[in-house]
Amino acid sequence: MSDLIQARILKGFRDFLPTKEIERRLLVEKLESCFRSFGFVPIDTPALEYSEILLGKGGGETEKQVYRFTDHGQRDVALRFDLTVPFARFMAMHKNELPLPFKRYHIAKVWRGENTQRGRYREFTQCDFDIVASDSLAADYEILLLMRESLLSIGAGAVRIHVNHRGLFNRFLISLNLGDSSTEVLRTVDKLSKIGAEETRAQLAELSNDSTAERILHFIQARGSWDETLAAMEEAVGGPGEDIDRLKSLRRFMLDGDIDSHFVLDPSITRGLDYYTGLVFETFLCDLPELGSVCSGGRYDELASLYTKERLSGVGASIGLDRLLAGLEVLGLSHLQTGFAPLAIACMDMSLMGYYQELAQRFRGVGINTAVLSEASKPVAQYTLAEKMGAKAVLIADASAIAAKTYSLRLLGPRKNIDGLDFDGIVKELFLEK
Amino acid sequence: MSDLIQARILKGFRDFLPTKEIERRLLVEKLESCFRSFGFVPIDTPALEYSEILLGKGGGETEKQVYRFTDHGQRDVALRFDLTVPFARFMAMHKNELPLPFKRYHIAKVWRGENTQRGRYREFTQCDFDIVASDSLAADYEILLLMRESLLSIGAGAVRIHVNHRGLFNRFLISLNLGDSSTEVLRTVDKLSKIGAEETRAQLAELSNDSTAERILHFIQARGSWDETLAAMEEAVGGPGEDIDRLKSLRRFMLDGDIDSHFVLDPSITRGLDYYTGLVFETFLCDLPELGSVCSGGRYDELASLYTKERLSGVGASIGLDRLLAGLEVLGLSHLQTGFAPLAIACMDMSLMGYYQELAQRFRGVGINTAVLSEASKPVAQYTLAEKMGAKAVLIADASAIAAKTYSLRLLGPRKNIDGLDFDGIVKELFLEK
Repeated sequence: MSDLIQARILKGFRDFLPTKEIERRLLVEKLESCFRSFGFVPIDTPALEYSEILLGKGGGETEKQVYRFTDHGQRDVALRFDLTVPFARFMAMHKNELPLPFKRYHIAKVWRGENTQRGRYREFTQCDFDIVASDSLAADYEILLLMRESLLSIGAGAVRIHVNHRGLFNRFLISLNLGDSSTEVLRTVDKLSKIGAEETRAQLAELSNDSTAERILHFIQARGSWDETLAAMEEAVGGPGEDIDRLKSLRRFMLDGDIDSHFVLDPSITRGLDYYTGLVFETFLCDLPELGSVCSGGRYDELASLYTKERLSGVGASIGLDRLLAGLEVLGLSHLQTGFAPLAIACMDMSLMGYYQELAQRFRGVGINTAVLSEASKPVAQYTLAEKMGAKAVLIADASAIAAKTYSLRLLGPRKNIDGLDFDGIVKELFLEK
Repeated sequence: MSDLIQARILKGFRDFLPTKEIERRLLVEKLESCFRSFGFVPIDTPALEYSEILLGKGGGETEKQVYRFTDHGQRDVALRFDLTVPFARFMAMHKNELPLPFKRYHIAKVWRGENTQRGRYREFTQCDFDIVASDSLAADYEILLLMRESLLSIGAGAVRIHVNHRGLFNRFLISLNLGDSSTEVLRTVDKLSKIGAEETRAQLAELSNDSTAERILHFIQARGSWDETLAAMEEAVGGPGEDIDRLKSLRRFMLDGDIDSHFVLDPSITRGLDYYTGLVFETFLCDLPELGSVCSGGRYDELASLYTKERLSGVGASIGLDRLLAGLEVLGLSHLQTGFAPLAIACMDMSLMGYYQELAQRFRGVGINTAVLSEASKPVAQYTLAEKMGAKAVLIADASAIAAKTYSLRLLGPRKNIDGLDFDGIVKELFLEK
């Protein structure tokens, strides 16, 4: 007779055990540190909002995936499914309280009832950074630079950022008399790397005709140096324009800043969303391009037009943390650690616990994280536990050692004991052990 | 004619603008750093779980407050309302994958449809730390020490931790033949500081009689040194026992570690929950005791008995972040800052943006967070913006200054310009400006 409830979690949701959670935290901390170094600041918004706010005038695919329900007060509410919509609502409400242009980052969980058979999670972390209330090219450039710096800071190796301008593609479609079906064409082109050139050609031909499909494919497949590609695009879209000027200036900044080698002008980058109006970009790990884009975004004209008549333009990017972590794992670059404390103090005599913790506090005070083991088990059992907790060494001291302030140190890697060390001697050994 | 959706948030939920979000983040970072220094590791669990898991066999008051609904797959699901229940489920599932005793912290949002008229939030952050799978007194002591250290680390001034042992109170009630109504008595006693002695006496008298109520009040109001109070309690409960021994040993550890002055033995601390079986504690800021406990918890015998037959005992505490932040504000100890970058580089000439960012990267490289302003407005407007963003100084450079690598620095506090500084000169000024 058992009344137990079966312990389980919802499909598409995850528990994070320490090793995985530490990995995620350290990654996020590196990214945050980089955002802060550029003067970006964090905000936070509620996980739960009015459905009307999140879903606007109805979002088709999105709407089906949203966790939506009626709360205690009979309000129609939903869990946020991204950080962009809440940010738009946030800006509509708080614009006048903020320094403008406003540079913010937001790292938080979002929820979507996705089909988990495609390996998707229903709860995942988004990491967005934007500069809003700015049309400036300097903002475009800063977002590109921050993408580069933040991805380099996490040690994923070299990245290549593919850049395009939505205005160019729109001008090209208008020249083909396809201005009215630009959304469908953009969505088709956006799938190029997934479905391949032949299937893209076939789908484009359905939207237009064979020769137009061929011209579009040729346009988006142009390759060469930034300047060559830009010249070819300029010709194809019918001459100069603000879009061309912006891409030329961005190139100038990259050359001046000596970071040009990380950027490619790529006419196939369109980003499927209607939302973008200017610069668009996707980022690939040079050592694992098949992973897909790990950081994407672009420039938009109307962030908050659902909620306010004030124009709020800006530029921003979103880092796919789960994809990035998966990429690091494939590349063997994951930094897996089971704990934060290189030193553990063994519990040789429970009655000495006050002294053990006092000693631990001294190590913590000089920056050495120190775990104190809480069970007076055999030394070997304590070594094993300390190792599982991620320690490099175990300090051993009985009552006479505590009185003499002279300790033994068990180095867990080489399985070696060093006796007769004082506090400073232990500190020194731990630095060598690193 | 307006199709706009009114931008608003749900009652009891909050947007965090940068100044408030930075304050929260820095507080959490200090706490995390302290937890890590003790060898505690982070975990995370889903925000959404099966209702059966979170609500167990029905939780009365709790159940009414939980955000519960039916998801796309017709599952009965709920948002977590605390971090303890998910942790119990987590331990039942993952016990064998973890080093035991397991020392973890978990800082995350929880949701309760509370009555907001009482100033409660419906979304708030909990911060829990526990040692599970341990009966050891060393674990009790470590949690007490970690409470002390983590609260001292955030600069809230001195704290006083009130400690008691649930077993003593239970023994006392049994001696009064009130063992069967211990839950009701505990809940009444727990309200002492809120409802006052007279009301407590009246409510206790209803549960028993006048003279018993008087004896209970006398028991919980015993005051004096730790040793005096313990002696009085020992007599009242009918003599020695494991509970008395544990409190004696804890006192010994505190004296050995020279931290005894932060701890008080307080028989009135019972914690309302049935859950606790041993040590219980509450923490008060010495400069603002009326704020109530900012960190509470205790020892429990059966963490996960809803989900597993395996006994999982432990000890843990929870820090009330919102209350703590409110307390810091009242005490004038809030650290409000609007940004992370002490230096801003003015946009004097948009065409120099590549060089401005390159220069900013050099400052970031030596640890000086640097914002680059993105609009080529008048210097005064740029100073104003930089100040709003939290900068201390603005670097000013036109094309000839960039070429000569010699810059002007506007100190925003004293409203003073310094000319002719090179990179190192700027770094030096910024360190002085701190």
